[in-house]
Amino acid sequence: MTIQAWAAMKPKGKLEPFSYEEGPLGPQEIEIEVTHCGICHSDVHLVDNNWGTDRYPLVPGHEVIGKVKAIGSAVAGLEKGMRVGVGWQCGSCMRCEWCVSGEENLCEASQATAAGHFGGFADRMRCDHRFAFAIPAKLKPENAAPLLCGGVTVYSPLRRLARGPNTKVGVIGIGGLGHLALQFAGDMGFEVTAFSTSKDKEPEARAFGAKRFISTSEPGALRACTGQFDLILNTVHHTLDWTGYIDALRPNGRLVILGSPREDLKFPGSSLLGGQKGVVGSVIGSRAMIREMLEFAARHGIKAKTESFPMSQANEALDHVRKNKARYRAVLVK
Amino acid sequence: MTIQAWAAMKPKGKLEPFSYEEGPLGPQEIEIEVTHCGICHSDVHLVDNNWGTDRYPLVPGHEVIGKVKAIGSAVAGLEKGMRVGVGWQCGSCMRCEWCVSGEENLCEASQATAAGHFGGFADRMRCDHRFAFAIPAKLKPENAAPLLCGGVTVYSPLRRLARGPNTKVGVIGIGGLGHLALQFAGDMGFEVTAFSTSKDKEPEARAFGAKRFISTSEPGALRACTGQFDLILNTVHHTLDWTGYIDALRPNGRLVILGSPREDLKFPGSSLLGGQKGVVGSVIGSRAMIREMLEFAARHGIKAKTESFPMSQANEALDHVRKNKARYRAVLVK
Repeated sequence: MTIQAWAAMKPKGKLEPFSYEEGPLGPQEIEIEVTHCGICHSDVHLVDNNWGTDRYPLVPGHEVIGKVKAIGSAVAGLEKGMRVGVGWQCGSCMRCEWCVSGEENLCEASQATAAGHFGGFADRMRCDHRFAFAIPAKLKPENAAPLLCGGVTVYSPLRRLARGPNTKVGVIGIGGLGHLALQFAGDMGFEVTAFSTSKDKEPEARAFGAKRFISTSEPGALRACTGQFDLILNTVHHTLDWTGYIDALRPNGRLVILGSPREDLKFPGSSLLGGQKGVVGSVIGSRAMIREMLEFAARHGIKAKTESFPMSQANEALDHVRKNKARYRAVLVK
Repeated sequence: MTIQAWAAMKPKGKLEPFSYEEGPLGPQEIEIEVTHCGICHSDVHLVDNNWGTDRYPLVPGHEVIGKVKAIGSAVAGLEKGMRVGVGWQCGSCMRCEWCVSGEENLCEASQATAAGHFGGFADRMRCDHRFAFAIPAKLKPENAAPLLCGGVTVYSPLRRLARGPNTKVGVIGIGGLGHLALQFAGDMGFEVTAFSTSKDKEPEARAFGAKRFISTSEPGALRACTGQFDLILNTVHHTLDWTGYIDALRPNGRLVILGSPREDLKFPGSSLLGGQKGVVGSVIGSRAMIREMLEFAARHGIKAKTESFPMSQANEALDHVRKNKARYRAVLVK
């Protein structure tokens, strides 16, 4: 079986048509005919080798939706013709303490879909069927693809770290992740505030579910929020007023880091003490979390707002994301 | 009623005999005849005005053990003659969301025993009876007094943040807090490691319950611990290799800050990401936590190792603590 893909042949390389051969399907594997593939900022980081860990040729794409075309001998629960999605992770050891306790996203042997594996910028893709999830019929693929990585990345900390139904949630950055976080948090019934440097994003942030908008470029705006939030999700990469955001937390509050800030975090340890506050990381979500997130998104009509590009314009689409122009996510369509 | 106490009359002032009058006992109040009072580093900070928030005269002492001498009209559960202990907190609003959910230590109106209230360096002390705890008969007062602040400070994060019976615990600093943390963690059945810059503390650390001792002044010793701990309690105030300790955490691990580090914490945000790690503060413990901790200490024979000083040598004792000479805690005895 020859698979036709788009690959970067070297760091920062333009994507080029690239084909590779696959042998017989492994027992746990499925083959997916890709119909849609979301583009995440991580795809840019992978192609550009910003994390210094990638091998080339590199086929990006880890927000994959398509049809099951073939199933391995041990596959259960999926059938040919079903519509499935695959996110950042497409395999894990299934034996370690994390895997057996339903936290496969923490598995040391986690297989990434688009690093060390050929991703979804392709006509087909193979993966362990246990990391392919049925997409609820109510979700349109162009709105659902980004849920598979971006969606679960914000859903998981809301789900794990919320302080009950009245949780006061702040979302820093109203972009690909942020616009999903506002929707999930709002539909969970939480009290939702958007933090953004761009005042012009206020109407859309409110439409996504924010009840309050803090324009953080206004002096004193963050400081006026002291002691107000149980959970603040940081979706941006630039250096923030870390102490200001920690001070904006209520007792037991958590500032959640979802992306890699470019510079070190720096804040007084004492700012964590009195209120038992914390700064914690969160990374994608487990299989159970992805299934739950998809069901919740379908029930509430949560959609990634996307711009579609034909797969043949993969370079233009990737560049659009690289330049932070996507409103709010880009999706390649077959 | 005239109470005879030892007070600092100004920042860094020597303690002087100081008497103050108390009026009729409030309905919720008790009066305690102090028999023992532990000395915590916070007492030094209060006297020396290191936190810049203290009022003088200042009567230190917030690890108080004594006999109930008088009870207010609304007091329930305590009687004259009972032996009780009081820790850092001696009152709270009892109405806010934190108080009603059993997290009085997070109450915004928390009353500290030795700041804005006259503490336990005295012949008597008054407080809200709901913050006085019966001391189990098995505990000797000179070993139990430091449990009321130092003990619960380490017990609470172990209790709240442990990852089940096999939790891998690291304790940084084998001093007043650290030697209690080793005992509690060991008796909870956890896997316990001591981190210390002083190689000579190894035998005692092992006697307190550490199964492993990491001499952090040896180059590479911390780095060799990468990925090994669920919970690391930091009991010291100096600047650490924060990234090294975060890297020493396992997935979902927490580095817990128990005292105010003198300089800002600084580490790459990415170090928190892959393993969903966190740096969190913890502050004393709730009333329920203190009761539970005392019962656990009594059942397991957990003791603060202390040096006793007569109350009349309060200055010498405080200075001993100020100079980090106490092995491992100092206690004033009536």
